[in-house]
Amino acid sequence: MTEPYELTATEIVAAIEANELTCEALAISCVERVESQEGNLRAWAHLDRDAVFTAARAADKSSSRGLLKGVPFGAKDIIDSVDMPTTHGSAIYAGNRPAWDAPCIAACRNEGAILFGKTGTAEFAHVQPGPTRNPFNSDHTPGGSSSGSAAAVGAGMVPVAFGTQTTGSTIRPAAFCGAVGYKPSYGDFSLTGVRDNSPSLDTLGLIARSVADLALFRTAIMLLPFVKLAEVDLSCLRVSICRTPWWEQAEVYTQDLVIDVASRLSSAGATVTDFEMPEGTADLVQAMRDVSGFEFARVMLHERLHHLDQLSQKLLAGRVNDGIHCSYTDYRGALATLDSYRGRFAAAMEGVDLLLTPSATGEAPKGIDSTGNPIFNLPWTATYAPVVTLPAGRGPKGLPLGVQLVGCRNDDHRFLSAAQAVERVINNVD
Amino acid sequence: MTEPYELTATEIVAAIEANELTCEALAISCVERVESQEGNLRAWAHLDRDAVFTAARAADKSSSRGLLKGVPFGAKDIIDSVDMPTTHGSAIYAGNRPAWDAPCIAACRNEGAILFGKTGTAEFAHVQPGPTRNPFNSDHTPGGSSSGSAAAVGAGMVPVAFGTQTTGSTIRPAAFCGAVGYKPSYGDFSLTGVRDNSPSLDTLGLIARSVADLALFRTAIMLLPFVKLAEVDLSCLRVSICRTPWWEQAEVYTQDLVIDVASRLSSAGATVTDFEMPEGTADLVQAMRDVSGFEFARVMLHERLHHLDQLSQKLLAGRVNDGIHCSYTDYRGALATLDSYRGRFAAAMEGVDLLLTPSATGEAPKGIDSTGNPIFNLPWTATYAPVVTLPAGRGPKGLPLGVQLVGCRNDDHRFLSAAQAVERVINNVD
Repeated sequence: MTEPYELTATEIVAAIEANELTCEALAISCVERVESQEGNLRAWAHLDRDAVFTAARAADKSSSRGLLKGVPFGAKDIIDSVDMPTTHGSAIYAGNRPAWDAPCIAACRNEGAILFGKTGTAEFAHVQPGPTRNPFNSDHTPGGSSSGSAAAVGAGMVPVAFGTQTTGSTIRPAAFCGAVGYKPSYGDFSLTGVRDNSPSLDTLGLIARSVADLALFRTAIMLLPFVKLAEVDLSCLRVSICRTPWWEQAEVYTQDLVIDVASRLSSAGATVTDFEMPEGTADLVQAMRDVSGFEFARVMLHERLHHLDQLSQKLLAGRVNDGIHCSYTDYRGALATLDSYRGRFAAAMEGVDLLLTPSATGEAPKGIDSTGNPIFNLPWTATYAPVVTLPAGRGPKGLPLGVQLVGCRNDDHRFLSAAQAVERVINNVD
Repeated sequence: MTEPYELTATEIVAAIEANELTCEALAISCVERVESQEGNLRAWAHLDRDAVFTAARAADKSSSRGLLKGVPFGAKDIIDSVDMPTTHGSAIYAGNRPAWDAPCIAACRNEGAILFGKTGTAEFAHVQPGPTRNPFNSDHTPGGSSSGSAAAVGAGMVPVAFGTQTTGSTIRPAAFCGAVGYKPSYGDFSLTGVRDNSPSLDTLGLIARSVADLALFRTAIMLLPFVKLAEVDLSCLRVSICRTPWWEQAEVYTQDLVIDVASRLSSAGATVTDFEMPEGTADLVQAMRDVSGFEFARVMLHERLHHLDQLSQKLLAGRVNDGIHCSYTDYRGALATLDSYRGRFAAAMEGVDLLLTPSATGEAPKGIDSTGNPIFNLPWTATYAPVVTLPAGRGPKGLPLGVQLVGCRNDDHRFLSAAQAVERVINNVD
């Protein structure tokens, strides 16, 4: 029998609406799941079980029927919340209590979702990991910097959690933890109340268990009317395999997985081609480094001036150092490089519904000292395009593997419909 | 004799460096100025004179030589500061104490500047005015939403203060209060730690007494090496008069002022032409309304849900209402309209160093129920171009008038050099 904690958000909403499940019973099931797993995984920076039960009982008594009624969710601990600390993955902000809910949290709560707690993150959403471990093997990283959100969803603690992505911080951990991940088109989800990392690149993202859940939360976050994802006829779907210039860095089993999914989509009727990335793709790495460094070094000024000894060497010697040494001319040049690449990428996407590409080089690496390589995420962050990662099997060590889908910028609803069609093929659902 | 409070930041730095002035003596002069004016003007949301004197004495004892050593400055009360409340011009956030200094404040303090306090603003930097009055005639508005910053600089309380601009909120109040105002190219000044209004349009700005001061603070805020503004040969300066489609809304004395300044620049050797705004200029009004409404309604979600009765009708019935009724399709369409206009505007600026245009329709309107008409500011916010307003005389009621200069996007340092040349012509300085 399916336990409540195993349900997707869409299933939860339907079960509660049909009086087959109470918010409280669901909360109990999820909290028990947290308690059985958290000692090992350390997904949460803050979770108060009594507050969760109080909120769930209040939801059961309320007559209002929100779009997300009763759905437990987590929020990366760089997102402001009025009733819980927001610590940015740093001891500098231990106990920090913002005076408000970030709009993304306020919006979900307003639709009846229950904020379980704040999920652990790498230091300031950069690369120095927190204590979180991978739910499929706790000797391995969950990925980062949305580590806790990915681990919490992957472990079945909550169906949905917020992440953020500046390079690959939502998609990679989602893939490593066997979850669905979504980075929307740049700018779609409000970042108000979310700690900046590199504002020209930052995106709020979602980690969930199904594409339908992404659409549901997308509606709530953006205060839009809910429109169910269209059923996409696979024979009309134009998929293009994108190996990227870094294909050789992917493990052979990752390469095989992408080819295998392409083959299954082709067998199911989709048109599958090969995608040639536009001129200048190799330049993205340095441009992203210049932009993220220049901005992050400035965002971190208060902490650098007043809490220098509490910042990691990875942060200071890495992106901050890059940023201090990047000139304004190089920064503006890098922004222009990204901007012109976006135009060429959009042109190259004419006639393509989806790119299919690896979500990461392979399984989650062993150890929790690093969060893994974002090279297969970086280009899509640079393009501002929407991206989804779908769980698509296991690697040689039994850890989850994902495939990444990339859509056309500012066309996310249609993209999610297409991604749902791919999800069904991967899951063998007719 | 010039009192210390009358000095520009550039003069202050030189006087302190030359041991002709102490930080404490300057602070005393400025605080006395505040105390003689504040009762009438109400420029400050927070100012603690003892803390200012303590900081000034510490600066005098310190051997470090920051770029802004001893310079008093104010910050609009939507910018986070660790040691003072940040209330966003709303009783909802009375006593709110952020856990950090926004990077723009941290940067100036790190260069030795002394944060005097937080300046009053319209509610959430929108249009419902605070209690601040115009320093030239307290029956009139100081403009908004950077009301307190403009009044404080215009009244001689501090030489420099931070504002922000989403439509015209830095340039208009600066002009109304006889100050120099500067809205940099979109994205140049970090908005981290600054309350969002409409993130696709928001810009941190400066209100000051000279163009040289703008360049000085720009360097500090952006963590760039200081480079003195170049001396621009007026015979090489290409100025173009921009009447805009709204020219008839400007008072005749405002129109005459712009033509007079153009004539003086021409006499001084500059090439003066007329500027034809690109196709689609009239569409900017609706596009700005759609973008600012869509985003502001979402930014304000926490307050709308939990503090609705503390929000003004101007806020709710105006921009928030616009935003609730703007569809995602219209929002994306408006962003695309602005983006394509930016390209045409950049092309139209080829061969032009500066546009010359009104800063506002006329003098500051009577009364403090509204902050004035931003129609002469809106197009330049839309273009993401850098803008400066310079005080350029008085109107029929004796209130200050400004002229607005517009430059090429992402070329702010060169633009400020050109603006300084214009400033000298206006001030009759050789």
